[in-house]
Amino acid sequence: MANLNPHLDKLSSYYFFQDIDQRAKALKAKDPQAILLNLGIGDITKPLTPHLLSALCSGSQEMGDKNTFHGYGPSQGYPFLREAILYGEYKDLGISADEIFISSGAKGDLAQLQELFALDSRIGVTDPAYPVFLDANVMAGRTLHWSEEEERYRGIVTIPCLEENRFLPVPPDMTCDLIYLCSPNNPTGAALTRQKLREWVDYALQHRSILLYDGAYEAYITSPDCPRSIYEIEGSREVAIEIRSFSKSAGFTGLRCSYSVIPKNLRASLNGQETALHAYWKRRQDMKFGSVPYPIQKCAAAIYSPEGQAEVKERLSIYQQQARFLLDGLKSMGFTAYGGIDAPYVWCKTPEKMNSWDFFTRLLEQAHVISVPGKGFGKSGEGYVRFSSFADPQILAEGLLRIKQIVGTL
Amino acid sequence: MANLNPHLDKLSSYYFFQDIDQRAKALKAKDPQAILLNLGIGDITKPLTPHLLSALCSGSQEMGDKNTFHGYGPSQGYPFLREAILYGEYKDLGISADEIFISSGAKGDLAQLQELFALDSRIGVTDPAYPVFLDANVMAGRTLHWSEEEERYRGIVTIPCLEENRFLPVPPDMTCDLIYLCSPNNPTGAALTRQKLREWVDYALQHRSILLYDGAYEAYITSPDCPRSIYEIEGSREVAIEIRSFSKSAGFTGLRCSYSVIPKNLRASLNGQETALHAYWKRRQDMKFGSVPYPIQKCAAAIYSPEGQAEVKERLSIYQQQARFLLDGLKSMGFTAYGGIDAPYVWCKTPEKMNSWDFFTRLLEQAHVISVPGKGFGKSGEGYVRFSSFADPQILAEGLLRIKQIVGTL
Repeated sequence: MANLNPHLDKLSSYYFFQDIDQRAKALKAKDPQAILLNLGIGDITKPLTPHLLSALCSGSQEMGDKNTFHGYGPSQGYPFLREAILYGEYKDLGISADEIFISSGAKGDLAQLQELFALDSRIGVTDPAYPVFLDANVMAGRTLHWSEEEERYRGIVTIPCLEENRFLPVPPDMTCDLIYLCSPNNPTGAALTRQKLREWVDYALQHRSILLYDGAYEAYITSPDCPRSIYEIEGSREVAIEIRSFSKSAGFTGLRCSYSVIPKNLRASLNGQETALHAYWKRRQDMKFGSVPYPIQKCAAAIYSPEGQAEVKERLSIYQQQARFLLDGLKSMGFTAYGGIDAPYVWCKTPEKMNSWDFFTRLLEQAHVISVPGKGFGKSGEGYVRFSSFADPQILAEGLLRIKQIVGTL
Repeated sequence: MANLNPHLDKLSSYYFFQDIDQRAKALKAKDPQAILLNLGIGDITKPLTPHLLSALCSGSQEMGDKNTFHGYGPSQGYPFLREAILYGEYKDLGISADEIFISSGAKGDLAQLQELFALDSRIGVTDPAYPVFLDANVMAGRTLHWSEEEERYRGIVTIPCLEENRFLPVPPDMTCDLIYLCSPNNPTGAALTRQKLREWVDYALQHRSILLYDGAYEAYITSPDCPRSIYEIEGSREVAIEIRSFSKSAGFTGLRCSYSVIPKNLRASLNGQETALHAYWKRRQDMKFGSVPYPIQKCAAAIYSPEGQAEVKERLSIYQQQARFLLDGLKSMGFTAYGGIDAPYVWCKTPEKMNSWDFFTRLLEQAHVISVPGKGFGKSGEGYVRFSSFADPQILAEGLLRIKQIVGTL
């Protein structure tokens, strides 16, 4: 009988966000009258802006005409989009268009870039963190079993992001080969400052580690001392892969388009030989990835037109204002809350040291408000829930009101 | 220093099809006047049909309206598309909609389904075969090094498809855990008959193997004794995963939409426990895959409307006629050629036992015709080239004429 990957049963049986959905559905089944307000949602709630829509539709129309339709596209993405990203995002940062790889969602790249590395690589993951960082390495076999006692997978290095370090991860004492960083952070909303990022790049240069830098929320940065790209830090092109997405910056969650930057100076050891990663990721994408649909790439390129930029900035400023509104609202009720300044997420401490699933359940059952329990992002997420600013303003306002009504009972 | 996956340098440095592109480009650089005719191309050459285009455009339009836009979709695909596929393709075959997983190209699934299996699984791959089957397993570490002497990767089981067995693979004597089959076959154009498929399902039932059945070209089948789906064979739902694509059946190469069927009775051993695969692939997709863009799924569902079916059938019949034209044309010049009846590919023997890269080069340099050298699909592809019926009829006709003009010199 064929044997399955033995690491599969180390994974929790549900992907974390599915778990939350299940619980919300269970409440609706028990109480069909309940009107649930989703204040945890990581999905955008506003449609595509007019100029981007127009690019999507005209790109689609091209597919019906013999003279303009597109078959297989280059696995790395069309040059028109890579050039647009280069000029729009990386103009003076020493990146070239052929270092940019278009992909169908940051999630996929964050899950799959680990395929480039040896199975015995030592992995460093911040805690809390987006569950995919860890899950992908669990499935690949780079961790030992889950330890109930330690509340973590053994065999990997956990880098805690705690209140006492303002949720900014600090390089560990030991050498990690591969480190997942996310800034602005999902779920804490904290963004790495230039100085902190400098420390990480120095660490990686010293230990010859690779940083997988998840910049999916860079568009939300407002603090002037937080870089938008890790490539603003000198030396980073030798150690960092940056992964970004149009999902949250331009409303692409349903369209699936993202990109990863693999600088050509990024090197690691291949069977004892120092080797550039770039050609191997290209080879991997040629083999396994079939490019992003042409109309979607046209739509993504439109983000960098003057009209696209104006629309996207306006949309972002709404989500940013809502994040402040959420942060201020929670604080005014007496909650200790973080984030919300450089990220769409607010990281809210549970009252009375309640555990995060309990607080999630109280909010769900008593206020019919959906949050995201911090524990789902890792052990250090315990004692927090994540709120998000993507919901409509009236839902955010109503949600805050409902929380206020139960706050005395908690 | 971080260590790369040590198996990366077992891969050839170029993905096979990129290699052909490079050689065609090199000829154009040497002889800029040359008008190359691509008779090898695996890409479609006709635009999206009107009804499908209209579905793509209206799905795109929905993305711009607050009331109709779609954010994150279910990782398994929208129920409307899974239901449409179920009724359109699998009505009486015992498959259910939640066994169908929508994905962004058969290539990706064919490359990634191996992640479910143990690294020491014994892999059976037909020879010749679509290079991804082998490459994905090489990269995962399931093969030993390439042997120049044997002209194959050691450590995997090669299942030859030869002229003497009408290019129909025969189950091997030994047990393989995982077997890649493709019917109608790329590159040989041969389709497995009901009886041959029965033998494979019996083999898999007996050895408890899993068959990865690449049915990307099923729409091209015309022979009544060749099943379109492996699920027409009793018992197959316990052993087979079927992977299909809209690329060649409905002109989706640039849109990226496909599906894989993982029956719930499909079981393998997980750490000694007999376990259904379905939930693990679902878990894998939830974690690593972000769903196919909503407008693309709407477009794919339109294939199953009466208008869509009529358009797609007409389009297919053109490609089918072209395959016959190509087959007959090559035969009339004295070539020994196969395929072309149940597949868009014609598998043409090289003249005078010339090797396939030499014949490819002669065709390229003397006739300015691009073919695909059989050797690129494996050792048993030596002595053949693949032609394809996707090119426009005038290009096929002109290409055949040019081949005819040089045939005496070969």
